[in-house]
Amino acid sequence: MSTSVIIALDAMGGDNAPRAVLRGANIARKRFPNVQFLLFGPEGTLAPLLKRMARLRKAATIVDTPDVVGDQDKPSAALRAGRNSSMRKAIEAVREGKAHGVVSAGNTGALMAMAKVVLRTLPGIDRPAMASFFPTLRGESVMLDLGANIDCTEDNLVQFAVMGEMFARTVLGSLQPTVGLLNVGSEEMKGHEELRAAAAILRGYPINFHGFVEGNDIAAGTVDVIVADGFSGNVALKSAEGTARLVSEFLRQTFKSSVLAGVGYLFARPALQKLRARLDPRRYNGAVFVGLNGIAVKSHGGSDALGFATAIGVAVDMAANGFIERMAAEFKHPAAPQQRAAVAG
Amino acid sequence: MSTSVIIALDAMGGDNAPRAVLRGANIARKRFPNVQFLLFGPEGTLAPLLKRMARLRKAATIVDTPDVVGDQDKPSAALRAGRNSSMRKAIEAVREGKAHGVVSAGNTGALMAMAKVVLRTLPGIDRPAMASFFPTLRGESVMLDLGANIDCTEDNLVQFAVMGEMFARTVLGSLQPTVGLLNVGSEEMKGHEELRAAAAILRGYPINFHGFVEGNDIAAGTVDVIVADGFSGNVALKSAEGTARLVSEFLRQTFKSSVLAGVGYLFARPALQKLRARLDPRRYNGAVFVGLNGIAVKSHGGSDALGFATAIGVAVDMAANGFIERMAAEFKHPAAPQQRAAVAG
Repeated sequence: MSTSVIIALDAMGGDNAPRAVLRGANIARKRFPNVQFLLFGPEGTLAPLLKRMARLRKAATIVDTPDVVGDQDKPSAALRAGRNSSMRKAIEAVREGKAHGVVSAGNTGALMAMAKVVLRTLPGIDRPAMASFFPTLRGESVMLDLGANIDCTEDNLVQFAVMGEMFARTVLGSLQPTVGLLNVGSEEMKGHEELRAAAAILRGYPINFHGFVEGNDIAAGTVDVIVADGFSGNVALKSAEGTARLVSEFLRQTFKSSVLAGVGYLFARPALQKLRARLDPRRYNGAVFVGLNGIAVKSHGGSDALGFATAIGVAVDMAANGFIERMAAEFKHPAAPQQRAAVAG
Repeated sequence: MSTSVIIALDAMGGDNAPRAVLRGANIARKRFPNVQFLLFGPEGTLAPLLKRMARLRKAATIVDTPDVVGDQDKPSAALRAGRNSSMRKAIEAVREGKAHGVVSAGNTGALMAMAKVVLRTLPGIDRPAMASFFPTLRGESVMLDLGANIDCTEDNLVQFAVMGEMFARTVLGSLQPTVGLLNVGSEEMKGHEELRAAAAILRGYPINFHGFVEGNDIAAGTVDVIVADGFSGNVALKSAEGTARLVSEFLRQTFKSSVLAGVGYLFARPALQKLRARLDPRRYNGAVFVGLNGIAVKSHGGSDALGFATAIGVAVDMAANGFIERMAAEFKHPAAPQQRAAVAG
């Protein structure tokens, strides 16, 4: 492949597809001038849209795929019936070496199932996890799993920790990222058995393992990487999103509550707009399936073009940083982490 | 008992005890002039403090108890060694009918264990749960369990739902509270098996069962009662608290980021102070152990006098509304909810 990064886009995935996908690619192309796109979807639908985007047109190739995975399709049904879907074909482009990564805003369960079947997990990893980064009091942190694995064993959690640590180093550029296990208290006796077992194993690993953290530690930025089973991670992330929305709405009402407050808003508007941008969920769009033998990024289904462009940026960053190659090197043999631990100990 | 409500206070529980406890009682006494207090703790410590609080002195009786449960004590150790502790004696006052309810800011695990042993669960309830209310876009909602039960069966979840529904009616005054089960998606196939089983049972109950809700529905106020296992509920609550703190801190930085923003703050200050009061965690202090044969309220360990006064207010409200009697009536026989369902169906 050339020095340019090629991203396969499921142009039909998401509430606002294909328009938001193509517009997002158009924005991303401006940010990353050396990115090329493969657009998967019905040519008859995509070509007229693409025609109007001069910048993107030069950097994108439509790959005609007639079928679309529905938002309500069960993963098993999508696997059976979606063999010619834009989602499946976009993922296959990564396996075949035609693209460095795939981005989709489509059905999460179907995307996860297809990505697992097509790309397969890296050696030494039993299950991939969904990871994303988000703002904290100390900068940015990563959390995984965000919902791909509802029930997790201690080995799953340990693998998530190692993958998350690597993700923080590679994508966020943290030098010695600290890792915490999400629990309901910091004491060793608390929480599910798998959590205590995972903590015991991680204490022997050559990573900066902090121990247990609680829900409030997520936004506090107590650690760089939060490890959770997919159920708790999903609850924590969505609970945080809901609260941020609540506080923003209360703030909006506050500035409308009196004439003086309205005047205050006018003075503070430029600063408040910066705050809004800082908390904009579109800035943190793009959950990564880590542990697969290929880059796959899930954009929020309701995202607009700007959010989709962020998700593309995540895939581009990972490709540019050789994320998969580095991950594969660390997980070469199932026993690799233990060997590292033995060396470190 | 007379028409006045008597509250037993563990005067030695919490980071700021006994000072914050007594000051909190002093504030609560102003709000509820017919409340009487039993203060459990070493007389030598409490008497000099009480002497300086003219209003509280008239309404409070010190019950000399020399021992204190430590913040780090395991529940089992507290049960064995804490037989003469302020926490234990305060709970016993409720069982003996000397007080209508107990409030403590001490060690949560110890308080839960002691309250279970001393007060026992109501007939038909296997495990008590921790419940609390919090602000949402639509008013206030209740969530339970917040950490008392890490692993829950479907029967536990169903009982939490029924207790939470009653709590919303009794304490929040909701007329026909809606109830949702916290999950990672609204589809029926998602989440742990116990959740799906609990949902199936609740669909046959004569309560306003909404189905599954997600983390973002908590702050959105999608339902009046959120039911969760103690692990997820704790993660959701603390994740929300951490996020509210993050946004508040970002907002503080915003108003300091420029001269204009600072001027804007001056204009909007009265309105912003109202917002701060609206989001003040002290307004939502006081988690209730529901399902016990007696009123027991846990104040946050780090709470100050104002927060402690709120927790006392929760206990007073529950006593005044006959919460335990109403709960006991609905759970009279283990089969009661099913019978109600049969009648409704």
